[in-house]
Amino acid sequence: MPADLAYDDPSSDVLLDPATGVRRSILPGGVRLLTQRDRSVRSATIGLWLPVGSRDETPAHAGSTHVLEHLLFKGTRRRSAMDIAAAFDEVGGDSNAVTAKEHTLYYGRVRSSDLPMAVDVLTDMITASVLAEDALATEREVILEELAMAEDDPGDIGYETFLADVLGPDTPIGRPVGGTAGSVEALTIEDVRDHFAEHYRPDNLVVTAVGDLDHEELAGMLQAGLRRGGWELAADAVPERRPRAAHPGPASAGLLTAPADVASLTPHRLSRPTEQNHIYLGGHGLTALSEDRHALSVLMSILGGGMSSRLFQNIREERGLAYSVYSFSAGYRDAGLFGMYAACRPGRTTQVVELLAEELSRMGEQGIDELELARAKGQITGSFALGLEDTSSRMGRLGTIELVHGRYTSVDETLARIGAVGIGDVSALASRLASSFSTRVEVGPDS
Amino acid sequence: MPADLAYDDPSSDVLLDPATGVRRSILPGGVRLLTQRDRSVRSATIGLWLPVGSRDETPAHAGSTHVLEHLLFKGTRRRSAMDIAAAFDEVGGDSNAVTAKEHTLYYGRVRSSDLPMAVDVLTDMITASVLAEDALATEREVILEELAMAEDDPGDIGYETFLADVLGPDTPIGRPVGGTAGSVEALTIEDVRDHFAEHYRPDNLVVTAVGDLDHEELAGMLQAGLRRGGWELAADAVPERRPRAAHPGPASAGLLTAPADVASLTPHRLSRPTEQNHIYLGGHGLTALSEDRHALSVLMSILGGGMSSRLFQNIREERGLAYSVYSFSAGYRDAGLFGMYAACRPGRTTQVVELLAEELSRMGEQGIDELELARAKGQITGSFALGLEDTSSRMGRLGTIELVHGRYTSVDETLARIGAVGIGDVSALASRLASSFSTRVEVGPDS
Repeated sequence: MPADLAYDDPSSDVLLDPATGVRRSILPGGVRLLTQRDRSVRSATIGLWLPVGSRDETPAHAGSTHVLEHLLFKGTRRRSAMDIAAAFDEVGGDSNAVTAKEHTLYYGRVRSSDLPMAVDVLTDMITASVLAEDALATEREVILEELAMAEDDPGDIGYETFLADVLGPDTPIGRPVGGTAGSVEALTIEDVRDHFAEHYRPDNLVVTAVGDLDHEELAGMLQAGLRRGGWELAADAVPERRPRAAHPGPASAGLLTAPADVASLTPHRLSRPTEQNHIYLGGHGLTALSEDRHALSVLMSILGGGMSSRLFQNIREERGLAYSVYSFSAGYRDAGLFGMYAACRPGRTTQVVELLAEELSRMGEQGIDELELARAKGQITGSFALGLEDTSSRMGRLGTIELVHGRYTSVDETLARIGAVGIGDVSALASRLASSFSTRVEVGPDS
Repeated sequence: MPADLAYDDPSSDVLLDPATGVRRSILPGGVRLLTQRDRSVRSATIGLWLPVGSRDETPAHAGSTHVLEHLLFKGTRRRSAMDIAAAFDEVGGDSNAVTAKEHTLYYGRVRSSDLPMAVDVLTDMITASVLAEDALATEREVILEELAMAEDDPGDIGYETFLADVLGPDTPIGRPVGGTAGSVEALTIEDVRDHFAEHYRPDNLVVTAVGDLDHEELAGMLQAGLRRGGWELAADAVPERRPRAAHPGPASAGLLTAPADVASLTPHRLSRPTEQNHIYLGGHGLTALSEDRHALSVLMSILGGGMSSRLFQNIREERGLAYSVYSFSAGYRDAGLFGMYAACRPGRTTQVVELLAEELSRMGEQGIDELELARAKGQITGSFALGLEDTSSRMGRLGTIELVHGRYTSVDETLARIGAVGIGDVSALASRLASSFSTRVEVGPDS
């Protein structure tokens, strides 16, 4: 099987990776199923993914994706909210859901003997939820509490503000995932039902599962569950797939031609009477499918990815200026960002901001060295290997492969690509990111 | 092997559980080593435990256990802080430490081929740290940032306050684990060195490890590492062991004879300009070794342990009054506590406090039913089984077995004890806890 097998392959059932047993089928209705059997465990993790997130909302319906995700736990034609909750609780399983900018995920982790239950409940939720008006009234209050909780976390609120500032506060991708208190209060049950009807369809559904399971059996349970909920699964349906960008480069919107001087950037300040200032500095980065994403992983590891990283050593270990300091990045279909974070008591803010900016500039001007490159590759490779011992992380990886990449990449292939990253790749990227530095957000007391 | 094998067994090397391969040795110096080999993974998690925590501090040295834990990462005679950080980073491993009220833990998770490195670095840290004065000066600032971060989290600060109020704010067990800004600022390097010299000794050390490892090889690496750091490991040394309480009952200090009326309890209020009020209600509970601890697990599951629990269903699902609501408990050698938590916007505080107290009272008066009991047992059993698929949780379980229990209990035995819990046990305990209700803490805006 070629390593870069694209999914344009018409076959409906493919063993994508004989070495690790990853298999993909297109089921009736265009439902995509990717599994990996792992005989060393007695559990399984299953995820049901819809390629719809907050970026697919209109401003008037901001937050509807997240509200719908909550309402799917509030009851189906066959199950009350208590039935759904008790089904996973009584077997000691985990079940939850995640709404993101570009997808929504419902997942469960259970002992393998409970997998039929998990499939039955999760398929019931995504096909046959009642979406009752009184349930929305109650759940809206829960979501307003969830938004209030995020508002009380200065790190959370700083990160959301940073994302909005970099990506565009009035753009679909830049808006906060949960909407705002105002937009959530304004949502009607019809808005939520419309959202459900438009996006929750067999040809949009991707199911990924890893653990002690049988692909054929799971395919059968899935189809039975979806049909029980009223979905018609036409034999000749094909998956709906978003156009796949052809090797997109760095997002150019907002890319500066000259590096911004940190001192010249007016901080976007949110005043809070907290003990610490929470600082986010960064700008546009790489899209999810950028050819440079492996160089970005290496760069992030060296800049602020661990205890031996430049930011940690310089700001925490040598100077004692912060407890938490790191770098981060996020990639979407057509946009991306990178940033650096630190929290410190107010009198140190100016110094910490300067040190963060200096580390990025220095890396942009002077690049990295062989020792740092080797250490970063070791870190990425080792943590990748450790992460793969967990069925949940592999379930997530299969979802990303299907929804984001649209092609299969084996673990060995990913590791080879990381191994191929050179000093020049990282240094060139550092230079580009240093030039794209545009945004400074601070949440905390006025100093 | 009897299920209740106590560690007074004089043998220095015992296969504690032939079914799961758990093995225990007493090494020279009185070092205790417990391992479980798991051939299904290619990684290992190792933990080095010292039975010393914040409760062993004098008031003048409050925070010294935690400060020492930080300083052990700052360099040994053979390694700089950067060497320690880079050793785990460059192989993609995790390494960290935890200071608690009754123990301190240093741990690492690595691919099994990196286990010799992990043992060498961790033994170096606990035997041969420099504990330099300038390192304390820098790290003190990091710890003050860590305390400031906790201060900014209303949930954290509420929980610490609740613990102190229940256990006694001026008692060793009730004081916060990290000390206060004042006590940390006052600590000298001599205080920290004294603490190290007193407690970091071979006969205090417990090592637990789970994964792709060999017990004999690990025992050899450990001894070599400890000797390299200068520890003498006498062949005839025996482990220092704290006296084991004989089936202690519920902590009686502060136990009320009549249930406190929630309305009559003056809340301990910490005023914060947050969106939500964070509410903690509870009182004295059970010690870690209480005979009723399995009934307590069942009770906590029913009261507020999952989405189907009474608190979640009543306060979140039916009324939409909170996003986060649950119950919790903690047990120590001679004290324990239980509590209920919810966060809500200020106008709802009174109603939420009443609902929390009512659920506990109702359970105390009316007990539980068969369906709830069965569901709770299923939840505990299932989540226990799922948790055991992870080497880190098993490493932690072996540490608890050695440090807290002082006797080996197999997984089957634990499950059998949970299975033996009856409706009467849980109902009687609920009645006792409802009578012990004594403490109400609220962090948030004045309503």
